[in-house]
Formats: sequence, structure tokens, C-alpha cells
Amino acid sequence: MIKNMVADHAKWPAKDDPIFTIAGKAQAAEKEFGIENVINSTLGALMDDQGKLVAFKSVYDVFKQQPDEELAAYSAIPGMPRFLEAVEKSFFKEFRPKAFIRTIATPGGTGAVKHAVWNYTNPGDQILTSDWYWTPYQTIAEEGGRNIATYELFDSQGNYNVFGFKKRFKELLDKQNRLLTIINTPAHNPTGYSVSNEEWDDIIGFLKEEAMDPEKRIIVLVDAAYIDFAGVSDERREFLGKFSNLPDNIFIMAAFSASKGFTMYGLRNGAAIGISSSKEIVDEFFSACLHSGRATWSNGTRGAMLTVADIINNQDKYERYINEKTTFNNMLRRRANTFVKRAEEIGLKLVPYRDGFFISIPCEKPFDVSKALMEENLFVVPLVKGLRFAVCSVSEAKCLKAPDIIKRSIENNL
Amino acid sequence: MIKNMVADHAKWPAKDDPIFTIAGKAQAAEKEFGIENVINSTLGALMDDQGKLVAFKSVYDVFKQQPDEELAAYSAIPGMPRFLEAVEKSFFKEFRPKAFIRTIATPGGTGAVKHAVWNYTNPGDQILTSDWYWTPYQTIAEEGGRNIATYELFDSQGNYNVFGFKKRFKELLDKQNRLLTIINTPAHNPTGYSVSNEEWDDIIGFLKEEAMDPEKRIIVLVDAAYIDFAGVSDERREFLGKFSNLPDNIFIMAAFSASKGFTMYGLRNGAAIGISSSKEIVDEFFSACLHSGRATWSNGTRGAMLTVADIINNQDKYERYINEKTTFNNMLRRRANTFVKRAEEIGLKLVPYRDGFFISIPCEKPFDVSKALMEENLFVVPLVKGLRFAVCSVSEAKCLKAPDIIKRSIENNL
Repeated sequence: MIKNMVADHAKWPAKDDPIFTIAGKAQAAEKEFGIENVINSTLGALMDDQGKLVAFKSVYDVFKQQPDEELAAYSAIPGMPRFLEAVEKSFFKEFRPKAFIRTIATPGGTGAVKHAVWNYTNPGDQILTSDWYWTPYQTIAEEGGRNIATYELFDSQGNYNVFGFKKRFKELLDKQNRLLTIINTPAHNPTGYSVSNEEWDDIIGFLKEEAMDPEKRIIVLVDAAYIDFAGVSDERREFLGKFSNLPDNIFIMAAFSASKGFTMYGLRNGAAIGISSSKEIVDEFFSACLHSGRATWSNGTRGAMLTVADIINNQDKYERYINEKTTFNNMLRRRANTFVKRAEEIGLKLVPYRDGFFISIPCEKPFDVSKALMEENLFVVPLVKGLRFAVCSVSEAKCLKAPDIIKRSIENNL
Repeated sequence: MIKNMVADHAKWPAKDDPIFTIAGKAQAAEKEFGIENVINSTLGALMDDQGKLVAFKSVYDVFKQQPDEELAAYSAIPGMPRFLEAVEKSFFKEFRPKAFIRTIATPGGTGAVKHAVWNYTNPGDQILTSDWYWTPYQTIAEEGGRNIATYELFDSQGNYNVFGFKKRFKELLDKQNRLLTIINTPAHNPTGYSVSNEEWDDIIGFLKEEAMDPEKRIIVLVDAAYIDFAGVSDERREFLGKFSNLPDNIFIMAAFSASKGFTMYGLRNGAAIGISSSKEIVDEFFSACLHSGRATWSNGTRGAMLTVADIINNQDKYERYINEKTTFNNMLRRRANTFVKRAEEIGLKLVPYRDGFFISIPCEKPFDVSKALMEENLFVVPLVKGLRFAVCSVSEAKCLKAPDIIKRSIENNL
């Protein structure tokens, strides 16, 4: 009896996605006890107060008004040119760095992460990110035989741990000479942290020093999947301008996702953006990603790309879109403020939240706590270092109630 | 000056896709000289006689009638369950083999090819296909450090070369112990050949003999991207039933694409189907592809999946769809018959055409011939061994004219 047909590197244990498993239990509870009696904070998608997914009308009206042929046809392999232009325009706003920039379409932000990991590291390499991190980074890394190394995101005072980042970065760069680091900001998943402008100055200053050695190759992937829900206006994009005039051996990539900003999760639309002082290096980026894309997903969702392009380039459509997004961004901020304020009042410790869909609660035995919370009809995602509460999917009223329940459960499980 | 930032394995020359380049020239000629004066047989998508892409109304009416939220939400990672069921139902029809079968969503047929290559071969391995082959197989193979090996698809009499296949297969299997072979059938791209039932019996008999050695692992990828435009009814699916009760060390994968059959090219919808006598081996297939998918494109286009499921499971919608598809399949067959008949009349040699979107014309110096044909406003894709004429995109009237022009040009370039 043959037991294996896949190659050794492709043997992975059968396992369910833990987030979807918990989300399934939450939905079952909603059916049994009624939506009003369940707090389901599992899924990372924006929901209204009735628990219904928010799909921007200003987006789907444009999407559906396209002729059938525009939806049916293949996209150009690197993405539709006007989409790629629109991505750059909407991503950088007034903070376009002084650099050569090229952009290529990907299926969501995941595709851009995949491009960075595959094309900028070698099998066996360590990839550096923070200890609170989006779990699929591990999946993407291990798929190609790479590993994730981490530094502590927050120091003992709960501040962003630039010192720890630098220390670990230097260790790995000295060993490998080539290092990819993934910085998930603004509105970090799962903590909601956004690296400040001053912290970016500190990071970039450090990277420039490391880059003095021409044998070193430094690649920074800015995973900005949640940037469209960070800050009030465009203040959370300001750091992008700092990627100007960098040495040639610092290459910046950004992951753009239309999933959140355009509520296009299921349409698989995103982009990888390459930023360098060298034209050759962004051209090389483009060729590498073009080859990878052709060899994996071929091309992207044409109708989704054209919709984004149409919205960005048409003033009426753009205003309608921005108004709708702002309304929901305000809703999201109210929910998060309510949660954070109540947590402060009762002394529930959080990791520093700035923006975005998630708030994280550090705790011991997160899996036990998550399980205990299920019995109180509160569903959160357990992570290695704590719990992830998705304010994006929970009403303000429930965001007020949740901290007390969570605090009690953490104390009961000490 | 640093010249390279990508890892060595990711260095690829900047080059345009040759098909899209020629297609661009064809479109320019159509503008300059009028569509009626240009024969544009470059793109592999079904077009009506006016050169407009065919987008099935029976598909896009269903697609667009979905609530915005259904388009916006993420799909389940392996694909929507009712889509996966619908794929199996519509793919196998009454020829479901006696085997364990599991299916997972992919972005088009390309994603399924990628799964087979990545998960069932090792770096450095040779992958066997015929010498007339779809160029992206090479791109997909080399992306992961694999190589394409070929056998001659047709023997000197112009018959399918099962002998050559067996010989090359055995050589490689003896060397590697593990061999993936890609058989693009029915309606092979680029020749339009469909492996007959008798030829399949011959192939399967041979593979079973090779599989007597339990050290050998045999993987067959049936790339069936064009199956929905093969044959008149379902006679071109009959071979699928032959994958019953195979030894455990023969694993069959099929690539399903909704691009052609549902005119969903730009929606990126397809599936990988695993077929084995062993439950463990299809479970392993599912786990491997689930991991790969999560690590590359994350998940698929939800609205496209739900549309296919809805059409397959609703009798009215299904009949409307089948009627529309049949109309266009008949159009396609008329075009191809006209081309083949005229070629026979004037003695233009073709490789054996049976079904599908393409007809191939073997010739010397295909790149020179293609270039010369451009000056006569006839646009075909040059391949290593000849020219690819896309009957899918050329009216019957032009299919009658084209063989004479091509024959003259081949003779002028001898």
C-alpha cells in the first residue's frame, strides 16, 4: 500500500483553518440563541450592526454596470494598466516617494506577500516579522521552505519595540546577507498598531546604516492591507514619502489589497508595489513578479480591477465611494474607541491599538480563555500570545459589553 | 551599484508575452484597415463573427443577479462546497470513475497545473508532455526549478504517438521513480487533438504495468480546460470513467477551468480534481493543495463559484446555459470544419484536429511565416513547430479564406 504520492516538501497535516472553525461555532450559536445574544468577533471583514457584511454600494453599482464582456475577458497578465495607475494614485495620495515605482496586480494582498517571499528569499532563509503576526505569513513561508523569525512587537512598557527589531534584524542580516522583513502597518493585524512617523525615521535610519555594506540586501515588505481604514484622513500614509532616495540595496515592496478598502474580499484583487532608487531594480521586480504570476494564478480579476480604476478616476464615483467609506470608517472608530475606553475603565490590558479591524488582548492560556468565552457566547480568535477581537464585525453596543466578559474569563483561567 | 535584489532563482528576462504582442498588432491593423479586412486568429477566447468576445448571457445574468454581499464576501479557502460538488457533477457527467475523488478551487486551470507541478514533483525533476504544448507549462515548471521534457505528439503518419509517449515515459520514470505527465485533452491546445478512448486504454494499460513496481509514483494531470467545447454531446468525457480501480501509485489529477466552458476567463475560476483508489491519497492531495492555495492566492472568486453552482443545480438555468453553449459550440465546429475542409482541398497540411479552439499548421520557420502573414493582415501565433490558428476567434467566412493565404506564405518562406 502506497501511503504518499505528493513530494516530501508538499506533505502537510490535514487541518481546518482555526478562524473559520470558530466562526462556524459562532454562527451556530447565533442561530440557537439569536444574534442579539452572541458576540461574534471572529471574522476579519467589516459588518454592520446587524452582523451583515458591508459591501459598498458605491463599488458594486460600478462593478455590476460593466458590460458582460468586460467581466468575461482576460485581464492583461500584469494587470489592467489603468488599474495599476489607479492603485498608485490611491495608495500614495500626496506621499509618493521620490523613487522608481512599478506595480503589478495580485490576487489580494496575499499574492503580494507570496511574491515577496518567493522572489526575495531563498529556501531555508529566515524572514523577520513581529511576534504578533498574521498566521498566513507562516503558511506562505513554509510552503516554499522558508521560516519566520520574530522579535517582540512591544517592549515591557507596551511601546513599539524598535530596539528588539534592530537587534534581531542585524543578527539575521549578518548571517544571511539578504533579509526580508514584513512590517504590517498601518492598522496591524492582529493588534491594530500603526508604526508612527518617528518610529519609521528610526527604522529607516538603521536600515541605511546596515546598507552601507554593499554585500547586504535589505528587503522591506510593508503589508498595508488595512491602510484604507487607518487614520481619519491620509495621515497614516505620510510614512510612504520616506521611501525616497534610499540606497539601491534597500528595496521596498508594499502589499495593496482591495479586499478591505473596496470591500472586494471575494473578488481577489490586490497589487504588489515595488519602490527603489534604481530603475533596474524595479524592472527586475516587475519581471520576477510577472513570471511568478504567470506561473501561479496567470492573471487577475479584470472586472474588479476596472471597477477600482473607474472609481479612482471619476470624480463623482470617487466622492460617493469616499463618503461611504468614511461613514463606515467612523463606525469602526466608534466601536474601537468604545472597546478601548471600557477596557481602560475596568483595567483590561490591551496591546496598543491605533487603527483598523482588530484589537488584541494579551493573556496566558489564550486557547483555554477562548474556549471558556464560547460558553458565554463570545467568540474571539485565540493567538499564541493572546486573543484577537475583531471590532470590524461587532456592534458598538457589544463592544461596550465585551471587555467585562473577557476580563472575567481571563481571571477565571489564570 | 547593486544590480540585483531578487534571489537568483527569481531572475527572469524582461519579455512581453508573444501572444499578447501579436494580438496588439492585430488590433492596430483592425483599426487601420477595418475588421473585415483583417484575420485575427491570435487570442484563445471565443468571439462572435464581429470579433466581439462571447460572454454567455445565461451566465452573466445569474452572476449579476447575486446580492452584492455574495460577491464581496470571502469564499471558503478550499472553495464554496456547492461549487465543488457542481464541478464534479458537470465535469464527470455519467462517467464518474469508481474512485475516491476530492476537488479544490483554483484560479482557472492554471492554478490546477501549478498545484500538480509544485506538489507532485521535486526541484530538478523532468515533467513529461508532448512537443506541441501550451507554453505556460514551461513557465510553471521553470518557476519552481522543474523542467519540461517532451515526446513527439504525432508519428510520421500523423497519428497520435503512443509509442513515443511510452518510451520517453519509461526512460524518465526509471531515472526519477516519480513522474508527472501532463496530457492536454480533449481539444488539445494548440493542436485540437483529442486522445481517443482506445488510445486511453493503451496508455492506462501501460501505466498499470509500470506501476507494478511499488517504488514508482505515477502522476497524470489531465488538463481538460477545453472539455466543454469538445465533441457534440458528452462523448469526449467517456475516458474519465477509465480512471476506476487504478493501483494506488497511479494518481490522476484533472484541471477544470470555467474560463472557456462558462466564458469566465477574467473571473479566475477553476478547480483541481484528485482521483485515486485510495482515500488517504486523495486526502493528502486535498491537504497539499489547501496549503499551497492558502500560501499563494488565499482563496477564489466567490461570486463566480456560486454562479457555476447555481447554474448546474437549477434546471431552468442549466437548460438556458446548455442551449447557449450548444449554439456557440456549433458555430465553433462549423468554423473548424470549414478551415479543415479547405486545407484538405488545397493540400495545406494540418496536425490532426478533433475539437476545440485551435488548429495547428506544422511548418518550417514559423516565426518568419507569422511575420510575413502579418503583412497580409493575417495574424497567427508562431510556435516552435508551426502556427496556431485560433478558430475560436475567426468567422466562418474568414476560416474559408485563411488556408490559401497561409499555404502561399509557407511556400514563399521555404
